Amino acid sequence: MPRFRNIAFVASDTEEAEAARATLAKRHGDVPPEQADVIVALGGDGLMLQTMHRHLKSRIPIYGMNRGSVGFLLNDYREDGLAERLESAETTVIHPLRMTAHDASGAQLLALAINEVSLFRQTYQAAKLRIAVDGTLRMDELICDGVLVSTPAGSTAYNLSAHGPIIPINTPLLALTPISPFRPRRWRGALLPNEAKVRIEVLEAAKRPVSAVADHTEFRDVLAVEVMEESGIDIFMMFDPGHTLAERILSEQFGY
Amino acid sequence: MPRFRNIAFVASDTEEAEAARATLAKRHGDVPPEQADVIVALGGDGLMLQTMHRHLKSRIPIYGMNRGSVGFLLNDYREDGLAERLESAETTVIHPLRMTAHDASGAQLLALAINEVSLFRQTYQAAKLRIAVDGTLRMDELICDGVLVSTPAGSTAYNLSAHGPIIPINTPLLALTPISPFRPRRWRGALLPNEAKVRIEVLEAAKRPVSAVADHTEFRDVLAVEVMEESGIDIFMMFDPGHTLAERILSEQFGY
Amino acid sequence: MPRFRNIAFVASDTEEAEAARATLAKRHGDVPPEQADVIVALGGDGLMLQTMHRHLKSRIPIYGMNRGSVGFLLNDYREDGLAERLESAETTVIHPLRMTAHDASGAQLLALAINEVSLFRQTYQAAKLRIAVDGTLRMDELICDGVLVSTPAGSTAYNLSAHGPIIPINTPLLALTPISPFRPRRWRGALLPNEAKVRIEVLEAAKRPVSAVADHTEFRDVLAVEVMEESGIDIFMMFDPGHTLAERILSEQFGY
Amino acid sequence: MPRFRNIAFVASDTEEAEAARATLAKRHGDVPPEQADVIVALGGDGLMLQTMHRHLKSRIPIYGMNRGSVGFLLNDYREDGLAERLESAETTVIHPLRMTAHDASGAQLLALAINEVSLFRQTYQAAKLRIAVDGTLRMDELICDGVLVSTPAGSTAYNLSAHGPIIPINTPLLALTPISPFRPRRWRGALLPNEAKVRIEVLEAAKRPVSAVADHTEFRDVLAVEVMEESGIDIFMMFDPGHTLAERILSEQFGY
Repeated sequence: MPRFRNIAFVASDTEEAEAARATLAKRHGDVPPEQADVIVALGGDGLMLQTMHRHLKSRIPIYGMNRGSVGFLLNDYREDGLAERLESAETTVIHPLRMTAHDASGAQLLALAINEVSLFRQTYQAAKLRIAVDGTLRMDELICDGVLVSTPAGSTAYNLSAHGPIIPINTPLLALTPISPFRPRRWRGALLPNEAKVRIEVLEAAKRPVSAVADHTEFRDVLAVEVMEESGIDIFMMFDPGHTLAERILSEQFGY
Repeated sequence: MPRFRNIAFVASDTEEAEAARATLAKRHGDVPPEQADVIVALGGDGLMLQTMHRHLKSRIPIYGMNRGSVGFLLNDYREDGLAERLESAETTVIHPLRMTAHDASGAQLLALAINEVSLFRQTYQAAKLRIAVDGTLRMDELICDGVLVSTPAGSTAYNLSAHGPIIPINTPLLALTPISPFRPRRWRGALLPNEAKVRIEVLEAAKRPVSAVADHTEFRDVLAVEVMEESGIDIFMMFDPGHTLAERILSEQFGY
Repeated sequence: MPRFRNIAFVASDTEEAEAARATLAKRHGDVPPEQADVIVALGGDGLMLQTMHRHLKSRIPIYGMNRGSVGFLLNDYREDGLAERLESAETTVIHPLRMTAHDASGAQLLALAINEVSLFRQTYQAAKLRIAVDGTLRMDELICDGVLVSTPAGSTAYNLSAHGPIIPINTPLLALTPISPFRPRRWRGALLPNEAKVRIEVLEAAKRPVSAVADHTEFRDVLAVEVMEESGIDIFMMFDPGHTLAERILSEQFGY
Repeated sequence: MPRFRNIAFVASDTEEAEAARATLAKRHGDVPPEQADVIVALGGDGLMLQTMHRHLKSRIPIYGMNRGSVGFLLNDYREDGLAERLESAETTVIHPLRMTAHDASGAQLLALAINEVSLFRQTYQAAKLRIAVDGTLRMDELICDGVLVSTPAGSTAYNLSAHGPIIPINTPLLALTPISPFRPRRWRGALLPNEAKVRIEVLEAAKRPVSAVADHTEFRDVLAVEVMEESGIDIFMMFDPGHTLAERILSEQFGY
């Protein structure tokens, strides 16, 4: 008796992805996500991230197949053998970040991030930030374009562009990485234990407005942001054996 | 007969700078800038940049004295001996960058920059840029936070934060430096001959809005930007012997 | 009844360290290391490393006090209160690396490293290396000055000089970091799971001789080197509360 | 009347290079270098460097054609049209570095370098160096694997591996770049005016032996090294139009 009998298909809105969805749904049926044993996502990394966000608390595993231009989080696309691939797939469990942003109105804005939470200047005025970790002030004034906190899964994304290190997927770490630090200008950031609670305050916020972004959710004009791993939420990603996310992140480190 | 008889004083609006201005004006007189042989600027690097911008085409030399928190471009402050210091000062000539930005309305926006011209994403969407140098396409798609072109004088400012190299002041070079490059993700930028003409096009500008900044002048929602050295404009900065800008930039490279 | 009744003191051969040893031995007695509950090391990081190497398999905890110029691994020196400080100290357990080097004579050379194992060119000829991780070839030709494998404890030492990342002390990772990579020239190295087995082969070894170093033990003209964590050996380092190695490595990341 | 009637061919000792030499010598004749208007070098960058070194003061231009694996300094190989290519080629003039090394015996060792002069530790003991520029002490103690001074032509070679910047070919600069700096550990080196005179002293030379290398000439156990551009020596390299060294170094900066 297969573990993954009821499949929900989702596809990005390209012709290629829609065609794949039609073909596969015809063969395997297509149930609503809430009745599914597994969600099969057809598209690129963008769709995969979006699908994980949509079903974040459902605990339904997600198996992606690459029908997009970038497919770091996805398995190769093949029309045949899907049932067998699902049965033999390996599951990687990851946790999102929980961002709590505070703005001038006193509002508290919540969002989850699978890749990273980033703060960023909104105008030409450099951001001036203060950073505490677990209640201890660690950086009393960082003048910069911004700063980000990345999960291991997100460490090959924006974090890497900002010159942060790639982190193996199952490592209990978060990367705290400055974006174009002006002062202290040679600060390279820090690797923090995954239970760290990071608090970032925006200094001179009126003159130097800053936005906060959790993956693709953006809040403008924030005054302070807290970031921590939400270990209570498990996200299950499925990969073909020999092509797990751990393997991808490892081999990404040997690419150049 | 002294070369610098008529002095115009400018000061930033701090108590300390204003007091210095009052004291020195009493001793040396204070003429309007257009009648001056030299402008003496009392404040920090911000005031110095602002003063150079205001008198960009006047060819009047500027001698700064540090009454601010950051004084990379400034001489030490001393109340006494100003006339002698002006006579013995050494002059560094620098040239600004000319930025021509184009927006969707067809408008052409001009601004000069002493430090750098930078392009930057306006929202969480990464910028997608195309870069040509002297009419030759050099980078057909750069996905990034932005990119900047820096003069030698500006190479210790934003350029350094973005991991660009420090350039000695009299070197005929410009630095082209990416800001958080995502793809190609390990691109470190380029040093270009100072006569290079750089053209940067914004791709998918509606989805990925980008602003262009010449020092502190910001244009939003640009479609393309051209940057070149404006060698027709000479800016004269005066420094005490042994403390020239060349010396400062050299010794800055040995700081850490 | 105190846990640490029998203390062995060791000191580096400076006047200051010897004097401290005499004073403390008079107060607390001084037993041979093999009869000790704790070894108290008086000197700098060099002595601390040497003491750990000397008593690597003894499982006797080591408490260092700084009587040298560099004391990253050491507690502050104070003459008074040693017994109380030992009782309240926190223990960090670390594991060394095991290096197995092979040379042209067929000999197999073993050494343990607390900080790092490094390979390095012996002449002006660049090293040409091949790297496999867990039996999988990851880099078939690295032309470079050398390469190193670092523990978290060693990540702030040579690894950092070679532009590798700082790793929090209790993280199950090793850093594999190239030294001046010439080809692929922008390779930044990799963070590996701590159970990884790294094998490095020296190519064209006659023309391009390479030495292998485990901390301070150097073997010349090696042909291949294997490196792995020796999880069977526990090294116990003691630190005053609030000044643990974890805290030091964390705060080191915020220094600049 | 052609400028380049008398051609001397040199080839590296591979079958392919020797065959090319035989073919071309049959067509164009082959005179001894001292009677030649131009030397045509057939091989890789190694041969090109060697040929420049051999004829360093001859002022005979050198035109390389790529019959090797790496050909950054070379033109494409074609059997036909050599006379026409020589007539239309553009000439780049570069200058070597002059290294003066001093050893314990009091000997003074001279060598010229086209790419770079580097100092390097000979054993596992880190080098301890002191650096002065134009008689001014700039770095009183650099603990490191070594340090190098590179010409613009050499800036894409070892300098780049050591994380130094690429310098456009006609820029009057030298790069001073540390190799694995341990203290100050985040020092990134400096760009110096090409007339700079760099003096590097080896501290604690008995405990920490250091070698000095000018391109491929190595001196062991040096105590001090002086490096300066030898502007009195012109080296003439010939390139096909549109493929000059300036263009190559420019486009190298856009590779990744």
